[in-house]
Amino acid sequence: MELNGQNFLGRDRSRQGEKQFQATNPSNGEKLLPFYFEATQDEIDKAVQKAAVAFPRYRKLNGETRALLLLQIGEEIMKLGEPLIARCCRETGLPDARITGERGRTVNQLGLFAGMLKEGSWVDARIDTADPGRKPAPKPDIRSMHIALGPVGIFGASNFPIAFSVAGGDTASALAAGCTVVVKAHPAHPGTCEMVAGAIHKAIERMKLPDGIFSMVQGASAEVGISLVRHPGIKAIGFTGSSAGGKALFDVAASRPEPIPVFAEMGSVNPVFILPGIMAEKGAEIAEGLAASVTLGSGQFCTNPGLFITEGTGEGDRFRQDVGEKIKKINAGIMLTSGISKACEQGILTLEKQRGVKILAKGAESGGFNAGTPYVLLVSSENFITNDLLEKEVFGPSTLAVTAAGKDDLVRIAEKMQGNLTATIYGNDQDLENYAELISVLENKVGRLIINGFPTGVEVCHSMVHGGPFPTTTDARSTSVGTAAIYRFARRVCYQNFPDRMLPDELKEKNPLGIWRLYNGEWKK
Amino acid sequence: MELNGQNFLGRDRSRQGEKQFQATNPSNGEKLLPFYFEATQDEIDKAVQKAAVAFPRYRKLNGETRALLLLQIGEEIMKLGEPLIARCCRETGLPDARITGERGRTVNQLGLFAGMLKEGSWVDARIDTADPGRKPAPKPDIRSMHIALGPVGIFGASNFPIAFSVAGGDTASALAAGCTVVVKAHPAHPGTCEMVAGAIHKAIERMKLPDGIFSMVQGASAEVGISLVRHPGIKAIGFTGSSAGGKALFDVAASRPEPIPVFAEMGSVNPVFILPGIMAEKGAEIAEGLAASVTLGSGQFCTNPGLFITEGTGEGDRFRQDVGEKIKKINAGIMLTSGISKACEQGILTLEKQRGVKILAKGAESGGFNAGTPYVLLVSSENFITNDLLEKEVFGPSTLAVTAAGKDDLVRIAEKMQGNLTATIYGNDQDLENYAELISVLENKVGRLIINGFPTGVEVCHSMVHGGPFPTTTDARSTSVGTAAIYRFARRVCYQNFPDRMLPDELKEKNPLGIWRLYNGEWKK
Repeated sequence: MELNGQNFLGRDRSRQGEKQFQATNPSNGEKLLPFYFEATQDEIDKAVQKAAVAFPRYRKLNGETRALLLLQIGEEIMKLGEPLIARCCRETGLPDARITGERGRTVNQLGLFAGMLKEGSWVDARIDTADPGRKPAPKPDIRSMHIALGPVGIFGASNFPIAFSVAGGDTASALAAGCTVVVKAHPAHPGTCEMVAGAIHKAIERMKLPDGIFSMVQGASAEVGISLVRHPGIKAIGFTGSSAGGKALFDVAASRPEPIPVFAEMGSVNPVFILPGIMAEKGAEIAEGLAASVTLGSGQFCTNPGLFITEGTGEGDRFRQDVGEKIKKINAGIMLTSGISKACEQGILTLEKQRGVKILAKGAESGGFNAGTPYVLLVSSENFITNDLLEKEVFGPSTLAVTAAGKDDLVRIAEKMQGNLTATIYGNDQDLENYAELISVLENKVGRLIINGFPTGVEVCHSMVHGGPFPTTTDARSTSVGTAAIYRFARRVCYQNFPDRMLPDELKEKNPLGIWRLYNGEWKK
Repeated sequence: MELNGQNFLGRDRSRQGEKQFQATNPSNGEKLLPFYFEATQDEIDKAVQKAAVAFPRYRKLNGETRALLLLQIGEEIMKLGEPLIARCCRETGLPDARITGERGRTVNQLGLFAGMLKEGSWVDARIDTADPGRKPAPKPDIRSMHIALGPVGIFGASNFPIAFSVAGGDTASALAAGCTVVVKAHPAHPGTCEMVAGAIHKAIERMKLPDGIFSMVQGASAEVGISLVRHPGIKAIGFTGSSAGGKALFDVAASRPEPIPVFAEMGSVNPVFILPGIMAEKGAEIAEGLAASVTLGSGQFCTNPGLFITEGTGEGDRFRQDVGEKIKKINAGIMLTSGISKACEQGILTLEKQRGVKILAKGAESGGFNAGTPYVLLVSSENFITNDLLEKEVFGPSTLAVTAAGKDDLVRIAEKMQGNLTATIYGNDQDLENYAELISVLENKVGRLIINGFPTGVEVCHSMVHGGPFPTTTDARSTSVGTAAIYRFARRVCYQNFPDRMLPDELKEKNPLGIWRLYNGEWKK
C-alpha cells in the first residue's frame, strides 16, 4: 500500500491544505516520507457532512451487518501484513513484537464488539405492556432501547498506535453503536493511521456501505482537533491522551452552543499500596514486579504505576531500596516522540524540585535518541499530602515512593488522592482484613481495583472498566476499554403505543432476535 | 407539622441567613407564612460536608436497606396527610385532586425504585473469570458493577411540587443508587418542600441511618443553587426547570476545577404531526384531544404539545380551525407563579411579533390572578424553518400550528427541529406507511416517540425515557423518569483478582443475591 499523505473524506482522498508535516522515527530522528497535509476547515466540514449524511442509514443497519463490518475491518487490517508492522515500528520506536501483539489485540477487540452485536442484548431492551383498564388512567404500551447517538469524533492516542488509534477501542465501540466516525489521526504515526484508514475503507467498500461511515483528517496542530470538536454535526468525542489535551477539548465541547459529551481518558498515577504483611513475605518478588510494571513499554501506558506507598518501617526502607536497585539495572528506552521524551525529563526535574522529594535511584542512561531514563523518587506522606503536584502523572518510566508513617497515614494518603484509572493493593489475608477501610476509600477514587497484581495489562472484556473519576477522565461514568464502552455512544429511545410492525426488531412482541429483555420488570428471552 | 422556615443540614435545622422570602398563593396573591431563610454559604458547606461524610456509609448499605428507606419515605409522606395537600395547593394554585394524584405518583415512584433495589440486577454485574493458562498472558479474574457516584445536588421543579421536587424522581433515583442528597428547595413551594424534607428525616431516623444522607437548603435567589453546584463535595446535579436555569447550572458545573455532570431536563415544544389520512377520518376527535393536551394543567407540563404540524390542505385548514374553536372554549387557568404567568404572556407577545405568525384563537380570559390564557398561533413552514425562535418553548397553555405544503415539507420541518422530549405522530396505517421517513427522522430528535396518543402523561416504568438531545436536556443519554434514571448517579467499578470474600455480594462467585449477571459473556442468574 502506497502512502500518499492525504485526508480521507469518506473514501475520497483530499489534499487542499498548505500546512505539511512528517512523521519522525524516534529511535534515530529520521524524517519519514510522505509529507502529510493538515486538513483544512473545508475538508473537516466535508468529512463531518458525509458522516451526518451516512448516519441515518448506518445506524439502522442491523447488528449482524455492523458486526460483519467490524470483522471485515479486522480482516483488512491483517491483510496489510508486515508493511503495517514495519511502518508502525518506524513511526513509534516500539518493537516489532509489541506492535504485532497490539494488532492482535485490535482485531480481537473488533471481534468482541462483533460478537456482542450478533448476540444483540446490549441494547438493554425494556418493555412495559399496555393495561387499557388501569384506573385512574389507562397504561400505554412503552418500549425502549439504546440507539446510536450520532456522528462521533475520535482522537487517536500516541501510545497505542493501533489498539487506541484509527480502528481502536473508541472507533470499534462507536461503529458498534451505529455511529459514524471522523477520526483525527495522531500526528506521531500518520502513516500507520493512513494504512488502517485504508483498511477500514476496503471493508466498507466490500460491503457496499455508505462511504461517509468513516473519515479521517490529519493534522499536527491543535486547530484541526478543535475544529472537529466544534463542528455542529459531531455529537460526542472519544479521546485518549494528555490531561491538558483532554481538558482543552472538554472545555471546547462544553462551550459549544449545543454542548456534547467528551469521553477523555487522560491517564493517571495508578497508586500501588504494598501492605506490611505481604512485604515481609514477598517483598523482593513484588519489588521486581513493580520495577517491571513501572518501566513496561518505557512507562508509556496509561496504567504504569507512577506512585507506590509503603509504611516507613525498616522493612519498608529495604523494599524501597530494592525497587531502586531493580530500576538501576533497567536501561533507558526509546520514547514515542521527542515531545514526550522532553516532557518526561521536564516532569522528573519538576518533581525533584518539590519540597522533600529525593531521587532514590536512576536507571542506565542510553545516550540515544529520545531516551526515557527510569527513575525512582522518594517523598514522605506529609510532603505528598500537602502538594497536589505530586499526583500529576509523569508519562514515562518513573515512579514516586511515598512513605507512610503507619496504617492511618496510609489511609490518609488514599483519602487525599484524586481520581485514578486504577489502584492496586498488595496484601496477605491478614493485611487485607486489617486494611479493609483502604479498599473502601479507593473504591471511590478509581475505575479498577487490583489485588496482588499490577495495573499494566488492561484486559479487553465485558467487565473491564478503563476510566475513573476526574482528573483521570472527563466522565467518571464511562469506560474506554471493554464492551461497556459502547454506552458512551448510545442513548435510550422510547416508543409509545407503536404498532408492532413499526417497532425495531429488538422491541417486537415476539422477540425475533431472541435477545434478553426486561419484559414487565422481568428479564426474559 | 409546624413549618419553621429553616434549612435542613442533615437533621439539624438552621437559620443563619439574613435574606428572607415567602411563598405566595398564586390564585389570590396571599403571602404565606412562615418566612424562609435563604441558606448561607456556611450552611451550604455544612450540608454538603454532612453528605460527604455520610456517603461512604450510605453507599455500602445493601439494596434491601436502601429499598426500605425509600418505602419508609413514602409512608412518612402519606402520614403528612391532608395538611401536605392543603399547603401544596395554596403554594401552587393546583387543584386538590391533582396534588393528591401527584402524591400517589411520588409514593409509587419510590416503590418502583425500592422494587428494583430488592431485585438487585440493576447493578449490571459482569464477571469474566480467570484463565491462568492463557497464552501469551494469563487472563485475570475481572468483575464489575455499578456503584454510587457521590453526593448529589438536586433542584426541585416548580411544576411538580411533589413528584419532581424534594422526594421526587431525582431524589428517589439518587438515593436508590446509593448517593447522598442535598436538595435545593424550589422557592415557589418552600412549605411543601419543608414538609417532605421532614418526612424524609423521619424515615432516616426511624431506620437509624446517618442523618447526612439528606439535607435541604432554601433560597429564592440564584446564588444558593450556584453555590451548591460549585461545591467540590457535590459530584452530580439533577435539575428540572427552564432552559436558562438548566444551561446556567451546566455552565457552572463545566467550569469547575473538577467538572461534574448536570442532568438538566429543560422542557421542549413536543411537536405533534397529524397526517392527512387520520385527519380525514378522525380530525374532530384529535383536535379535541390536542386542545385538551395543550391546556392540561394550564400547559405547565414539560410535555404539553407546543407545536403541531399539519399539511396545508382544505382538510388541514378545517383541522386547525377546529383546534382553535376548542381552545376558545377553554378558560384561562391559574399559573404556578406570577413570574411564570408573566413569562407566558411575554412569550406569546414575542411569538406574535415574529414574521408571519398570527393568532388563530384565544381562550377565555379570567381576569383573575396569574391567569394563563390559552392560545393557538399559526405560521407557515417557510417562516417556521427560518426562525429558530419559533422552537422555543412558551411554558403555558399555548400551541403553534405550523402549516406544511405537503409531505416533503413536513419531513423538512422535522429535519430542522432541535432536540425534544417527545414527538407524536397521528396517522392511520396508510399514513404511517407513507411517512416512515418522518418517524426515522424524529427518532434522532427525541427521547420518546408516540403514535396516536398525546405526549402529556409520563408513565413511571422501566422503559420510560424522559429526556432527549440538547436543548431539551444537557445529556441526551439520560432519562429523569423511570428506573433507568438511576444510571445518572452511578458509575461502573471493576475488581481484578479479588478474593471472593472481599467482593461485593453482587459479584461473589456463588451469586448470593440471585441477580442476573453477564457471566463470561452469558446472562445468568
